[in-house]
Amino acid sequence: KFRNLFLDLHPQNQVDIFVQLNRQLRDQLYNMIGGEEFASVFEGLELEKQKQVISELSDKYVAHIFNTIPTDEVADFLAELETVHANKILNSMNKDRSMIVRELLSYPIETAGGIMAKEFVTIKTTDKVSDVIDNLRFTAPDAETIYYLYVLDPKGKLSGVLSLRDLIIAPAFETVGNIMGTDIVTVTTDMDQEDVAKLMKRYDFLAVPVVTKEGLLTGIVTVDDVIDVMDEEVSEDFDEFIAAKGGMDVNISSIEAAKKRAPWIVMLIFFGFITGGVIGQFEESLEQVVVLAAFIPLIMDSAGNAGTQSLAVVVRAIATDSLEKKGLLHAVRREFGTGLTLGLITGIVLLIVVPIVYGSFSLALIVASSLFITLSISTITGAVVPVLINKSKLDPAIASGPFITTFNDIVGLIVYFTIATTFIHYL
Amino acid sequence: KFRNLFLDLHPQNQVDIFVQLNRQLRDQLYNMIGGEEFASVFEGLELEKQKQVISELSDKYVAHIFNTIPTDEVADFLAELETVHANKILNSMNKDRSMIVRELLSYPIETAGGIMAKEFVTIKTTDKVSDVIDNLRFTAPDAETIYYLYVLDPKGKLSGVLSLRDLIIAPAFETVGNIMGTDIVTVTTDMDQEDVAKLMKRYDFLAVPVVTKEGLLTGIVTVDDVIDVMDEEVSEDFDEFIAAKGGMDVNISSIEAAKKRAPWIVMLIFFGFITGGVIGQFEESLEQVVVLAAFIPLIMDSAGNAGTQSLAVVVRAIATDSLEKKGLLHAVRREFGTGLTLGLITGIVLLIVVPIVYGSFSLALIVASSLFITLSISTITGAVVPVLINKSKLDPAIASGPFITTFNDIVGLIVYFTIATTFIHYL
Ligand SMILES: [Mg+2]
Ligand SMILES: [Mg+2]
Ligand SMILES: [Mg+2]
Ligand SMILES: [Mg+2]
Ligand SMILES: [Mg+2]
Ligand SMILES: [Mg+2]
Ligand SMILES: [Mg+2]
Ligand SMILES: [Mg+2]
Ligand SMILES: [Mg+2]
Ligand SMILES: [Mg+2]
Ligand SMILES: [Mg+2]
Ligand SMILES: [Mg+2]
Ligand SMILES: [Mg+2]
Repeated sequence: KFRNLFLDLHPQNQVDIFVQLNRQLRDQLYNMIGGEEFASVFEGLELEKQKQVISELSDKYVAHIFNTIPTDEVADFLAELETVHANKILNSMNKDRSMIVRELLSYPIETAGGIMAKEFVTIKTTDKVSDVIDNLRFTAPDAETIYYLYVLDPKGKLSGVLSLRDLIIAPAFETVGNIMGTDIVTVTTDMDQEDVAKLMKRYDFLAVPVVTKEGLLTGIVTVDDVIDVMDEEVSEDFDEFIAAKGGMDVNISSIEAAKKRAPWIVMLIFFGFITGGVIGQFEESLEQVVVLAAFIPLIMDSAGNAGTQSLAVVVRAIATDSLEKKGLLHAVRREFGTGLTLGLITGIVLLIVVPIVYGSFSLALIVASSLFITLSISTITGAVVPVLINKSKLDPAIASGPFITTFNDIVGLIVYFTIATTFIHYL
Repeated sequence: KFRNLFLDLHPQNQVDIFVQLNRQLRDQLYNMIGGEEFASVFEGLELEKQKQVISELSDKYVAHIFNTIPTDEVADFLAELETVHANKILNSMNKDRSMIVRELLSYPIETAGGIMAKEFVTIKTTDKVSDVIDNLRFTAPDAETIYYLYVLDPKGKLSGVLSLRDLIIAPAFETVGNIMGTDIVTVTTDMDQEDVAKLMKRYDFLAVPVVTKEGLLTGIVTVDDVIDVMDEEVSEDFDEFIAAKGGMDVNISSIEAAKKRAPWIVMLIFFGFITGGVIGQFEESLEQVVVLAAFIPLIMDSAGNAGTQSLAVVVRAIATDSLEKKGLLHAVRREFGTGLTLGLITGIVLLIVVPIVYGSFSLALIVASSLFITLSISTITGAVVPVLINKSKLDPAIASGPFITTFNDIVGLIVYFTIATTFIHYL
């Protein structure tokens, strides 16, 4: 009775229940439902939980699971195991399925090949609409999607795509060749997963066919997996943006996270010495007019904020392709203009506030003009660097917030102290 | 001939061609294809281009377009127009469609109601499988998706969902009631669009039914629109992260962008005065040992970087729901641990490097211990603030990088100068 209630639930709801069970209850569930039925629960679990579950089950039960879940999910999981373990599971699977999984594992994980599924439905141009619908009854259960049917020519080349919607609408006696779409959009196995996602977003596809360099259909990428890719890519962008170097995942330990971030933080400390060195160069001015030190934070933080904002604007513009026509230089110009305007606004504010707080209009002029120049430069740096990185395939960490901030700090302080030193006799 | 070639293209490819045409060629295209055929091109255009196109077309042609494209797209477009213009178009549309659009316009744009479509297919529990498939031939052309069929009881309440896949697989003589899924996942019209997106991602849905508070089916949200929502929400998070206040959109002018960012940048300048005031408080120490100023950038930048990293970790954890079970406090603890570890690592580096560069081990001890404390505090601030904001619905800008950085700068400098002043006789 509980068995039927459980199996009637949506798989994701089965997952939500399963993760609440303790070991004893989990064992009872394993006994109550078979490996084929447990497969959809397994699919929905997080990696660590999946590993745990595998260790609790018999080899035979495990084999049933991996003979049931989509091969792309099998490949994703096995890619996370050590080779010995992965091979053991591969050997326990049906021969035809393990061969497919081995193929999937051969593609780099962040490419179309690495995220594609092998279970798709193919038809022929000469097929009759009513026959195709009848046949779906047998091919549908194993396919990742049946909402697109792929039309192959005798050589296995993709010659058309037919949506199930168009199939359903078409007269029963019509042949596929007459109703299929021939303006086919495909991706190749080596296309970056982010580009696949952008393409599917543009075309509002539920799936896109993946072809080999020879044009043979070899897989499909489905929209549910593309949504996960989008999340991954955003986390990657955030990670690069803050130079965390992979230390963002909340599920790794503090030590691991610190280890990943440390090289970059240490490097920034050395940059800090350079910034400190700039101040050191102007020690004489500082000794003469100690109040100059009070504006170091203002110059540094404003340079940092303006640069980071411009950086974020360009990073998102690249990620969302929102500048396709106007080009990235438009973003650079826009940010420079914004920097100039912000420099003017903050300059005016400083010309009013500094004399009130520090009683010196000369000081206000020095700070305001320094900030104006600093903001203008910072926005350009923030906007230009990611564009260059994007074109040159250099380490994207150079386009991170911390790097841009440090660079802008140095520039800002040089500008500020140079102006201050030049006009120090007015203070 | 060109007409047929053009109409055979995928709509997105039609769009790509259309945007290249000059006014004269556009006019030729308008004459060659009808408003119904042009509708799918219009759908794919960006807002500004859509407005331009409308201004080039006769009222009748425009009416044809808006009587063809999905009502949710009509609503999205009209929401961007002035009321007079929107009403003019509404009045030119078929009565039944304009009523639907008016309903859609009544929901806040970032809710399920604001992103849902009204064109869905409903069936009854007593319907026979073969009849449902036959009827789809007539209902499919107008529906946003036919891949889920919604089963309504006599009162209009949603009593089941049937995927087209399950329908195709089922025996022809079976009735809907026996094969439909009854563990239905729904959203209500007022659910935030971001939560709708998270739910669809979790369940791998292609569409989700939207119900009223009374449980009546009123719309569906489709995955293509959810993908756009995901992009929007990420841009929103980036925007909040850098406190750009809506000034991130690359398609607005420099002046507009500056106007949006200015209030926050100006506010940060006042915070800069506070930070500067901290330095001012320790002017005596600075006058005694001017070299202390050289470490201001190091303390500030490290505090800023560590805090911003922790902030990003928590912002992403909230956005991706990746802490559901462990809770957000886990992230705070993780980040604090990371801060301690980074503090230790950088402390050791400083104890080695500072004596070499500045020839003083006492100075190294002061800087290293200050940085250790600063990093530990900064990571906590960065992690805790967004958690509090998330719970309290305060202005999320307080959880932005610039705010956290400024706060951490102040704390870091107080720690540093307090320690330095206390032990100044060792320098
Ligand atoms: Mg994979
Ligand atoms: Mg789209
Ligand atoms: Mg998949
Ligand atoms: Mg998946
Ligand atoms: Mg990327
Ligand atoms: Mg990537
Ligand atoms: Mg809408
Ligand atoms: Mg999913
Ligand atoms: Mg839609
Ligand atoms: Mg859309
Ligand atoms: Mg949001
Ligand atoms: Mg939102
Ligand atoms: Mg800073």
